[in-house]
Amino acid sequence: MTDQGFSLFQITLQQRAASVETLLSELLSDQPHSGEISRPARLMAAMRHGVLNGGKRLRPFLVMESAALFGADNFTALRIAAALECVHSYSLVHDDLPAMDDDDLRRGQPTVHRKFDEAAAILAGDSLLTYAFELIASDETELDAQCRVTLITALARASGIGGMTGGQALDLEAEKIKPDEAGIIRLQAMKTGALIRFACEAGAIIGRAGTKDRDRLAEYGSAIGLAFQLADDLLDVTAEARDMGKATGKDAAAGKATLVSLHGVEWAKLQLAGLVEQAEEVLAPFGEKAALLKDAARFIADRRN
Amino acid sequence: MTDQGFSLFQITLQQRAASVETLLSELLSDQPHSGEISRPARLMAAMRHGVLNGGKRLRPFLVMESAALFGADNFTALRIAAALECVHSYSLVHDDLPAMDDDDLRRGQPTVHRKFDEAAAILAGDSLLTYAFELIASDETELDAQCRVTLITALARASGIGGMTGGQALDLEAEKIKPDEAGIIRLQAMKTGALIRFACEAGAIIGRAGTKDRDRLAEYGSAIGLAFQLADDLLDVTAEARDMGKATGKDAAAGKATLVSLHGVEWAKLQLAGLVEQAEEVLAPFGEKAALLKDAARFIADRRN
Repeated sequence: MTDQGFSLFQITLQQRAASVETLLSELLSDQPHSGEISRPARLMAAMRHGVLNGGKRLRPFLVMESAALFGADNFTALRIAAALECVHSYSLVHDDLPAMDDDDLRRGQPTVHRKFDEAAAILAGDSLLTYAFELIASDETELDAQCRVTLITALARASGIGGMTGGQALDLEAEKIKPDEAGIIRLQAMKTGALIRFACEAGAIIGRAGTKDRDRLAEYGSAIGLAFQLADDLLDVTAEARDMGKATGKDAAAGKATLVSLHGVEWAKLQLAGLVEQAEEVLAPFGEKAALLKDAARFIADRRN
Repeated sequence: MTDQGFSLFQITLQQRAASVETLLSELLSDQPHSGEISRPARLMAAMRHGVLNGGKRLRPFLVMESAALFGADNFTALRIAAALECVHSYSLVHDDLPAMDDDDLRRGQPTVHRKFDEAAAILAGDSLLTYAFELIASDETELDAQCRVTLITALARASGIGGMTGGQALDLEAEKIKPDEAGIIRLQAMKTGALIRFACEAGAIIGRAGTKDRDRLAEYGSAIGLAFQLADDLLDVTAEARDMGKATGKDAAAGKATLVSLHGVEWAKLQLAGLVEQAEEVLAPFGEKAALLKDAARFIADRRN
């Protein structure tokens, strides 16, 4: 990775993050949108706290860069990216609840149930999830109806029973019955992998890519999703809570098996390098146009927080 | 209401309920559906417990009868009805949580967090909500894509910020700052009214009704939604916990203002009669075809549990 390449990636990541935050901040204002009776101020504040928290906005970046690969309209990609970030944020808000991971901090700030209360966090999460589907279904983009239902189907699958919430459920069980390696891989592919894969596939759907290209983006998404979780597990072992803005060492404390606890840190680093290589290879047919997506794969593997 | 009319309504309500339960039981099986990696058994059990609980299935009935009014395909209406019941059920599962209404019983059975645990109840609710949108977006019905996005938009609005979850948020605040009469009406229109109204409007959407007829069904839905909440508030004051299968007198205990606490039981009964009349009048143009929907309005106003 050249310094220049890394720098362009970092700048673009920040620009994309700023765009999606501006849109989310408008969308989640207190002002009722058309067709709404009212927007309860405290609920909206809890939703904004859960979403506008200085996240890296990696998933929105992946949607927008993947869509750009196929020349898709930028405004449209931005709205789908915002919807996906609502789903990601809702999952964090619920995951932080006392009955789940019981986290007080996220990115150095109090979690939604600590800043507001548990009921507000439950409802804010529910509302964010619902709003994500409303955003995609709305006719304010240039997407035709078929494209919108394709996105909704893919997002619901990635975030529901067979995807994210299913993976979270398996994760809770994993604290009692330790899964074997295949079980861990399946759990992680569902819990964090499915939504990252969706982000990349969504760009191809928005850009009306052919089946072959859509499959390529999905494969790229699977590789970086796996890398993301592996890097996360590594960080849980090696990073300081200060750098993460949240508690670390929680997996070990919970007796939770990860690929890192099974195979060790050195093995995990080799695996990560292999996944980055796989991601780069699958993007090779797109040439220079995919440079930032390749950078994203390296960024995910190398991240420190 | 004649005995015969009541009986036909009761039989139809039960038949519709049986159909939607059979479909929900198939949809929420442990067997992974196409495109899903896995279905965690405990999560599915928690979802089934939250959904297959002997509910009256009033909302599915309203979808199916409204759709039948416009000659819509029965299988299609049934799937949309099942999706709506998933949304209704998720809201009950989350509403019963200790941080929300803290209920141990629903229809005489332990609530999901009592039978499983809080984490399972949170995830089961999240998964049911997500699954509802997947069901509507799926291409297994004869609905075209435009019709599906119209339904998704309407459902998301009815159940999100400006609808159900917004109403729940207002309801939580109402325990601290007592709303005035207009505030109570708005709260109830959002919390319970919006989803009942959606049920009726959905039938018109599925049946490709014209704007005028769709508005009629929405107005009918608003009237019976208001009646539903008024009857609920009355029951909270007058019914026995035994009949309700859940705790009663909770509103008064929580110091929660309702239209019944403001205006008294006799006023509420008169209001209910007026709402039934309004519902019947708005359906008048449909003649005999709408007989069961008129029965439904009376059933809602007269219900004992």
